[in-house]
Amino acid sequence: MENQKAKPKQEMTKASQNPTVQDEHKGAVVTIIGVGLIGGSMALALKDKGFAKKIIGVGRNEASLQKAKELNIIDESMPLEKAVKQSDIIYISIPVDATVPITLQVLNAVGNNQVVIDAGSTKSALCQAVATHPMRKQLVATHPMWGTEYSGPEAAVRGAFEGRACVICEQELSDKAALKKVETIYNKLGMHIIYMDAVNHDIHAAYVSHISHITSFALANTVLEKEKEEDAIFEMAGGGFESTVRLAKSNPAMWAPIFMQNKENVLDVLNEHISQLRKFKSSLEKENIEYLIELMENANKIKRIIK
Amino acid sequence: MENQKAKPKQEMTKASQNPTVQDEHKGAVVTIIGVGLIGGSMALALKDKGFAKKIIGVGRNEASLQKAKELNIIDESMPLEKAVKQSDIIYISIPVDATVPITLQVLNAVGNNQVVIDAGSTKSALCQAVATHPMRKQLVATHPMWGTEYSGPEAAVRGAFEGRACVICEQELSDKAALKKVETIYNKLGMHIIYMDAVNHDIHAAYVSHISHITSFALANTVLEKEKEEDAIFEMAGGGFESTVRLAKSNPAMWAPIFMQNKENVLDVLNEHISQLRKFKSSLEKENIEYLIELMENANKIKRIIK
Repeated sequence: MENQKAKPKQEMTKASQNPTVQDEHKGAVVTIIGVGLIGGSMALALKDKGFAKKIIGVGRNEASLQKAKELNIIDESMPLEKAVKQSDIIYISIPVDATVPITLQVLNAVGNNQVVIDAGSTKSALCQAVATHPMRKQLVATHPMWGTEYSGPEAAVRGAFEGRACVICEQELSDKAALKKVETIYNKLGMHIIYMDAVNHDIHAAYVSHISHITSFALANTVLEKEKEEDAIFEMAGGGFESTVRLAKSNPAMWAPIFMQNKENVLDVLNEHISQLRKFKSSLEKENIEYLIELMENANKIKRIIK
Repeated sequence: MENQKAKPKQEMTKASQNPTVQDEHKGAVVTIIGVGLIGGSMALALKDKGFAKKIIGVGRNEASLQKAKELNIIDESMPLEKAVKQSDIIYISIPVDATVPITLQVLNAVGNNQVVIDAGSTKSALCQAVATHPMRKQLVATHPMWGTEYSGPEAAVRGAFEGRACVICEQELSDKAALKKVETIYNKLGMHIIYMDAVNHDIHAAYVSHISHITSFALANTVLEKEKEEDAIFEMAGGGFESTVRLAKSNPAMWAPIFMQNKENVLDVLNEHISQLRKFKSSLEKENIEYLIELMENANKIKRIIK
């Protein structure tokens, strides 16, 4: 049940701003390896913004690929080698433990006019693994900072990346034309690009993303453990609870490899978090309300950073 | 700068469903003690739904009362004793440490036709304090389960309580007519009522509300402590981080008394939370990916409870 027509374009506001650059990519055949939340949303965005004339999906799960076709996210699916051979752009958006071997496999197969992009949430392991590969320069290592707690092609959304940051790592090791192409794509998708080395990326990602997921998973486990009357949670839980616990619905198959690859940084920030929670514990145990207020007033400083 | 006119009604969908009950309250003069996030939103709702013809604001902060008048949240302000004397309904929505003495003071002043409602996030301390008061029956002890991380009259919103739960504690100790009036009001505001004893309320509130605030405050402190490059948080932080950390913007003056009054329950759930975080820590330290996945799969069960 192949469907060659993409859904109507929903977001085209910026698509005509730079027709020269856009036309240059209009004919691109794009392979998306891993058509889930990120890959699926990227496929929709590349079609909507005029960067892709054809999207080929690659993945291990035949049912997912079928679903992606039904949703008009991809035009067709085929095995990796065959897909890479006919593509201008290869976008890799799979769990980060699989990203390393698959990226190497893709680099083994590409030529000087093909661009490989990865979207992994960790960057050090990949950058190390490809460092000495003769085709390293065809890879642009990126992390578009967007996601939801849902997964699979059904989770793909239009306009997903608009207004978010995208980190590009080790841009000096990428081919200039390939880098420019990738920058153009992310910019047209409405992202602002931050350049960072892979080691720093992984430290910052632990602070602003990975720890939030761990605290949310742990909070869900806490409440599920303590609250035997699930009806009470269901009836009483309000916006605050939902907001802090929603990331606990995230996909373990995606997050386990991220935490493992970024183990040192995640442990570092997790230790700090446990120590911060102990301060709250201590202020309560000692009924030290001044200290409790001081801890909260300090936390209020986050207003400077998030609206 | 007193303003007798309320803003145009925005939410009136259910207001005409039961005109008899509604008319009965149409003439009500309502005093709101504490015109902030909750009291301000309640004032707007009572006017919008036709329960109040006049709203009197009471509070310690003259600037806040002035602001509430400018925003058409209250019609006038006056000292507590004078306001209570002329009111049919007295709604108490102040930090829970002040709720206890102020409620006693109000009960000292009311007669058998006046209804006192409190909206505190803890219920045991208050219910104990008023237990032997001769006018206890005029009080209906409630906890409307709604809030945001903002405070003050500027934080008041229309339609705030719609679709949320409201806990009523010790309903058997309230006068039947007073209880019925309060049930009618909350129902008309779109809330579903849960009856619970005060001790159980405080246990459940610790699970579904108080711990979320502590983890969020602690997460903000963690990131502020570890991340010296605030620009990086600012640029990279996405929806997941914002969602888990937004409660850290909450008002310490409101939350410190809640945590202190509910100390035992909060400590209990906080200890469990730290122990759950330690499980994540241990799985990472031992690189036990199976255990890590098991922890996350267990957390995924929260999907059963929140959408």
